[in-house]
Amino acid sequence: MQRYTVGIVGLGLIGGSLAAGLRQSGFASSVIAWDADADVLERGGLLGVIDEGVSLEALMQRVDIAVLCVPTLACAGLLLKMLAIPDSTAFVTDVASVKGPLRDALQAADSRDRSRFVPGHPIAGSERSGVDAARADLFQAHRVILTPEESVDSEALKLTTRLWEAVGADVVSMDVGTHDAVLAATSHLPHVLAFALVDALAQSPTRADVFKFAAGGFRDFTRIASSDPVMWRDVAIANRDALLATMDDFGEHLQRLRTAIADGDAAALEHTFRSAKAARDEYAKDFERRSGASG
Amino acid sequence: MQRYTVGIVGLGLIGGSLAAGLRQSGFASSVIAWDADADVLERGGLLGVIDEGVSLEALMQRVDIAVLCVPTLACAGLLLKMLAIPDSTAFVTDVASVKGPLRDALQAADSRDRSRFVPGHPIAGSERSGVDAARADLFQAHRVILTPEESVDSEALKLTTRLWEAVGADVVSMDVGTHDAVLAATSHLPHVLAFALVDALAQSPTRADVFKFAAGGFRDFTRIASSDPVMWRDVAIANRDALLATMDDFGEHLQRLRTAIADGDAAALEHTFRSAKAARDEYAKDFERRSGASG
Repeated sequence: MQRYTVGIVGLGLIGGSLAAGLRQSGFASSVIAWDADADVLERGGLLGVIDEGVSLEALMQRVDIAVLCVPTLACAGLLLKMLAIPDSTAFVTDVASVKGPLRDALQAADSRDRSRFVPGHPIAGSERSGVDAARADLFQAHRVILTPEESVDSEALKLTTRLWEAVGADVVSMDVGTHDAVLAATSHLPHVLAFALVDALAQSPTRADVFKFAAGGFRDFTRIASSDPVMWRDVAIANRDALLATMDDFGEHLQRLRTAIADGDAAALEHTFRSAKAARDEYAKDFERRSGASG
Repeated sequence: MQRYTVGIVGLGLIGGSLAAGLRQSGFASSVIAWDADADVLERGGLLGVIDEGVSLEALMQRVDIAVLCVPTLACAGLLLKMLAIPDSTAFVTDVASVKGPLRDALQAADSRDRSRFVPGHPIAGSERSGVDAARADLFQAHRVILTPEESVDSEALKLTTRLWEAVGADVVSMDVGTHDAVLAATSHLPHVLAFALVDALAQSPTRADVFKFAAGGFRDFTRIASSDPVMWRDVAIANRDALLATMDDFGEHLQRLRTAIADGDAAALEHTFRSAKAARDEYAKDFERRSGASG
C-alpha cells in the first residue's frame, strides 16, 4: 500500500483523532502538524499523535495532503493562505461543519488552486475537545460528507476519499446547499435547543431543584449542551440562513403542539407524538444497523 | 425483616419493575396484581414478575400497600375506587408523573381514606414500555419524590418510603406545585421538544437525507421521542399549566438566541452557550456522582 505524508492544520479533537487514526491505519508514513498554539504541537508529539510540529509553509511544501481542522470561522482565511503557499502542490481538505462560507471565500483563489481543495465534513465529534481527547477510532463507522465542486481535481477527490476510508469512515458526496440544510436540521438546531433549554433552566428560580431532580432522559437530551461554546458560536454564525430557516420550521411545529396542549386536544397530541415516535424508531434502527451502536 | 403483601395496580414497565424489585429485595412476601388486561397479568405470572393476578377488590383487601401504576389520566378515577373498597385498610401510593390532578380529585374522598394515600413519583423510566421490559433494578440509585399532604397517616408515609428504599431508590419529599413545575421543566418540556423536532424533520422535504446523516448527538437528543405517545399525551394534558409556563419561558430564551444568530451577535451567542455548558457540566458531574452513570 502506498503511504502518504499527511499534514494536520489545527490539532484539536478532530485533527488529533485523524492524525492518530491515519498513523495507526498505515495510510500515513508520517503526520506533521501546524497549530497556532505551539504548546498544543508539543503536547501532540508527547501523546504520540503526530510525528512533528512544523510551520504552515513547511507543512504545505512537504505533505501530499493537508487537512484543515481549525474552527469554522478561521477556515476561509487559512485555506486561502495555504493554497497560496509557493512550491506546494499538496491537496487540501477540511472538516468544517458548514460548507457555504468556504465555497464563497474560495472564489478569491486562483482556479488551479481551487481545484486542489476538496471540502469535507466528518459527522463525528464529542462534547469533549482538545488533542488530549483524540481517539484513533473516532471516525470508525461514521459518515464523512464531501461537497466537491465540478472543477475539482479527480486525484484530489480520490486521495481525500481514501484518507477518510483509511480511518474507517463511510464517504458520501452531496452539494453544499443540501449539506448545510441537513446539518442545520440534524445538528445545529438540536445544539441551539439544548443550549437554550439549559440556559433557561439555569436562570429559573427553581434552578437548584431543577438540576437535582433531572433524570437520565434529561442527561441524554442535554448532552450536546456540554459542547464547545466557541465552536458552536461559529457554526451558528457560519450557517445562519439555513439555521434560521430550520428554527422557524421547528417553531411552527412547537407552536402547534403548544396550542394542542392549551386546548387539551388529546387526539392532536397523540397523533404528533405517534408519528414522531415512528420516525425516530425508524431512524434509530437504521443508525444502529449502520454503526453497530445501540438505541 | 418484616415482609409485606404488596399489590400492583397496572402491570406495565414501572409496575412490573417494582414487582420484580420488591420480590427480589425480600420486602414483599408476595406481590399480587390487577390489570385491566387479563393477558398482561398472565404474562406477568409467566415472567415470574408477580405471584398472582387478582380482582381490584381482592387486591385491596389482601395487601398491606398497593401501588397504583396506571397511566396518569386513569389514576384519579381508579384511586377513588380503590380507597372506597370496603374491608380494606391498605395504604396506597402511586407513580404518576403529575401530582396536581390527583390531589384535586382526592378532595372527593373521605378524609380517613385520603390519609391512607401517599402520592409518589419515581424519576425513572425508559423509552421501552410493557411488563416484558420490566427490570428489578430500574429504580436503583434513582430518586423517588413523595408529595404527601400534612394530613397523611405517618405509618403510610413510612411504609411507602421503605418500599422505595427496598428497591434501591433515594426518597425525597416536596410539595405538589414544586414537583409539577420541576418535572415540567426537566422532563415534560424536553419530551415535547424532542417530539416536535422529530415531527418537524419527518415532514421536511429533505426527510430522507436528514435521518440518513443524523449523527450520535441527534440520537441522544431524540431518544425520548421514542417514548410511549399515549403516556406523554396524558402527561402533557395533566400538567398543562406548568408545561405551558415552562414552554413559554423556554420560547423566550430561544427567541433571544434566534435574534443573536440573525444579528451575527457572536458575543451574545458565546455568552449563552458558555453559561449553558457550565450549568450542564455541573449537572452532569452531580448526576454521575449520585448514580455512578457516565457523562
